[in-house]
Amino acid sequence: MTLTMTENEIALAIIQALKEGKKNSLQDIIEELQPYDMAQQYHQLPKKHRNKFILYLSIEQLTSFIQELDKEEQLDILYKLGIEKSTKVLDLMENDDLASLLTDLDQDKIEELLSEMKQEESQIVQNLMNYPPETAGRIMNNRFVWISKHYTIREAVDKLKHFAELAEYLNYLYVIDDEKSLVGVVSYKDLLLGDLHDKIEEIMYSRVVKVDVLTDQEEVAKLISRYDFVSIPVIEDEDKLVGVITVDDIIDVVIQEANEDIEKLSASGKAIDFNTKPLVAAYRRLPWLILLLFIGLVSGSIIDGFSATLEEAVALAFFMPMIAGMTGNTGTQSLAVVVRGLVSSDLTFKEVIKLILRELWVGIIIGITCAIMIAIIAFIWQGNLTLGLVVGASLLITLIIGTLAGTVIPLILYKFKVDPAVASGPLITTINDILSLLIYFGIATIFISKLM
Amino acid sequence: MTLTMTENEIALAIIQALKEGKKNSLQDIIEELQPYDMAQQYHQLPKKHRNKFILYLSIEQLTSFIQELDKEEQLDILYKLGIEKSTKVLDLMENDDLASLLTDLDQDKIEELLSEMKQEESQIVQNLMNYPPETAGRIMNNRFVWISKHYTIREAVDKLKHFAELAEYLNYLYVIDDEKSLVGVVSYKDLLLGDLHDKIEEIMYSRVVKVDVLTDQEEVAKLISRYDFVSIPVIEDEDKLVGVITVDDIIDVVIQEANEDIEKLSASGKAIDFNTKPLVAAYRRLPWLILLLFIGLVSGSIIDGFSATLEEAVALAFFMPMIAGMTGNTGTQSLAVVVRGLVSSDLTFKEVIKLILRELWVGIIIGITCAIMIAIIAFIWQGNLTLGLVVGASLLITLIIGTLAGTVIPLILYKFKVDPAVASGPLITTINDILSLLIYFGIATIFISKLM
Repeated sequence: MTLTMTENEIALAIIQALKEGKKNSLQDIIEELQPYDMAQQYHQLPKKHRNKFILYLSIEQLTSFIQELDKEEQLDILYKLGIEKSTKVLDLMENDDLASLLTDLDQDKIEELLSEMKQEESQIVQNLMNYPPETAGRIMNNRFVWISKHYTIREAVDKLKHFAELAEYLNYLYVIDDEKSLVGVVSYKDLLLGDLHDKIEEIMYSRVVKVDVLTDQEEVAKLISRYDFVSIPVIEDEDKLVGVITVDDIIDVVIQEANEDIEKLSASGKAIDFNTKPLVAAYRRLPWLILLLFIGLVSGSIIDGFSATLEEAVALAFFMPMIAGMTGNTGTQSLAVVVRGLVSSDLTFKEVIKLILRELWVGIIIGITCAIMIAIIAFIWQGNLTLGLVVGASLLITLIIGTLAGTVIPLILYKFKVDPAVASGPLITTINDILSLLIYFGIATIFISKLM
Repeated sequence: MTLTMTENEIALAIIQALKEGKKNSLQDIIEELQPYDMAQQYHQLPKKHRNKFILYLSIEQLTSFIQELDKEEQLDILYKLGIEKSTKVLDLMENDDLASLLTDLDQDKIEELLSEMKQEESQIVQNLMNYPPETAGRIMNNRFVWISKHYTIREAVDKLKHFAELAEYLNYLYVIDDEKSLVGVVSYKDLLLGDLHDKIEEIMYSRVVKVDVLTDQEEVAKLISRYDFVSIPVIEDEDKLVGVITVDDIIDVVIQEANEDIEKLSASGKAIDFNTKPLVAAYRRLPWLILLLFIGLVSGSIIDGFSATLEEAVALAFFMPMIAGMTGNTGTQSLAVVVRGLVSSDLTFKEVIKLILRELWVGIIIGITCAIMIAIIAFIWQGNLTLGLVVGASLLITLIIGTLAGTVIPLILYKFKVDPAVASGPLITTINDILSLLIYFGIATIFISKLM
């Protein structure tokens, strides 16, 4: 019925159904929508209609709808639903989504929510929440179908039919032995092609790619995108199958990890999006800025220290910002290459050396190019050959060092598993500022006699 | 057999099979490996064994293996295989991968490769390559199963069985009418649960989310991650079904788009990874650096222009790098928030205003905080109250302006669909450098009398 309707027509139909109190016709409309679109409609709905909207939805609709909202809205709605209805929703929610909903709620709030739920469901969620954040255990879900290796294809298909709604996102069945150990995987295709009497054991693929509950989610994303899987099984204690991670969760991980990389590069502070309140955003950004403020004063004191040189050859001040800026920029460029490169490939020691040498060469090439340009500019502009040479030589050296700093610092942090946020772009920029000023004025001071 | 073997044991087994010329036992080993792992083994293989390795593989193995390699290797191997064998491989390759392999090869090379292929296959690839890069048409593939709405479930299942290997990555069947128009979608689950005699028409879901061939790949990624789809149908001329895009391709898109965002933020130049040659990397990075070199000289000339002020109050030079740096940093922070925010949400005008006001507030808050700190520091350090006020006031204003610049500039570029690479981090940093110097020295010059 909604098939031919536009977003707005649907919106109107929803409001009408709400005004006329037609619960069923509302549910019929919603039934046709994707969860994301339900959420869109809810957000466009005038505030005064929202409560009614929520109360009219069926439990199933509420469940798929609520998973599209952000945490505050979810809690708000659960509260409005009342304990009984909301518990039903929680029971139906995918337990990885539920776990992330409960994350950083205070303990008694969590217990209040979980207490009413079905024992086994709430237990599962509790378990999920015991795994450290950003691990496979935390993002896995238990909505998968496992079969025993002793099954025949017919038995497998029957079980699949029985648990069909679980199998929605998957196209494999995971095979376990009598100890619940993961021993193989069978694709729907195998089931379709095989003979109904074939034993699963005989048709299953045994070399299963799997991850441990404690595997970092970034690592899981790497595997899934490498192997083009739709899902990957999660094991505990060597080989016990405890869950699966589906590709739709992984896309979110990839986006999240990319955002984290960019936060590192720009020191823009954790988890700031378009909805973050000004005070919160400022609070998250300030620590970096204050740190950088003090580092900035260091550059200042360097200039201060060389004020004698500066006063003797004021022309030096002219090229100061350019040299400092360029060194910072080339460092950021190298940093970006390293940080993103580490996303898709793990580095062997040999590759690290290769990378550093590569960047050294890059530094030398861009160094020489820019040095020659600026030397000529400086000479023509100021009619002072020595100045040209001093500026050129400084730029050559600082660009090489800046490039190496942007490469080596993040690699060292990566090696020692230090949070590479420390290698943020602005920080590298500022370090390179300081280095470049020291080198520039150092060289200038040596040739000071010739500069005047 | 390889089940219990480690990577290294497999590597040894492969080498042994190659040395003893046992083609079959090599194929048996390879059969057990994922394509990605085949590629890994190939790369670990001593150069002298590689040719033999390639020649020993079956066409199917070659096909899945070759898709894991980068372009140069692919072409190299196709060449070594000789025209006959390589054509067979090309026929089997997923046509989206094939299209991207052929991208930016010269035309006659492409024709040489395609000429030998099955007519219909090469035609399909030719068509793909006619779509602009980074569109749905370019990344879609034709490995999907369509069914007529007139089918019964039994007929659908039969067709599915027949094309099982195509259906590997999908769990929906797309339904078309007599005009080949996409009219619905049916999940495997629906097929399993329905009665064999049910008409597809009756059980299909009609409100299909689809994309046009010309839809930007970033938009496709947005849709797939919103709706948690495993695949999305691609249509042409209103509703003709021409292909599907599967989630495994989308993950690559998400990673690629994230990398592009980072290239923008760090001006690090297009497509530089760990394997890029130094000269190429330098060549891609230099244009930015040269541009920034000249902009850097502008800052220099500003300092030069205020040299009178500087010489009268040398203490000003001390805080100069800090103010310039801070303004650049806060700008980069805002830029990062905007660029990444645009990945997951499209902005309405209302939201844009909201965002700008938010960032304005952020600028004011961090501005006031840092301004007070630096004013006190400046006062204590230099024992000059006016200097403290001048530095503090300048920092307040520059931080607010820097924050707004980092927000507004990318938004304007986004609005006018200009390549936001222009809004790269270093560029914003440099623009903010210039603004901050003008403001700082401007204010200082006003109070110059009091500064001495």
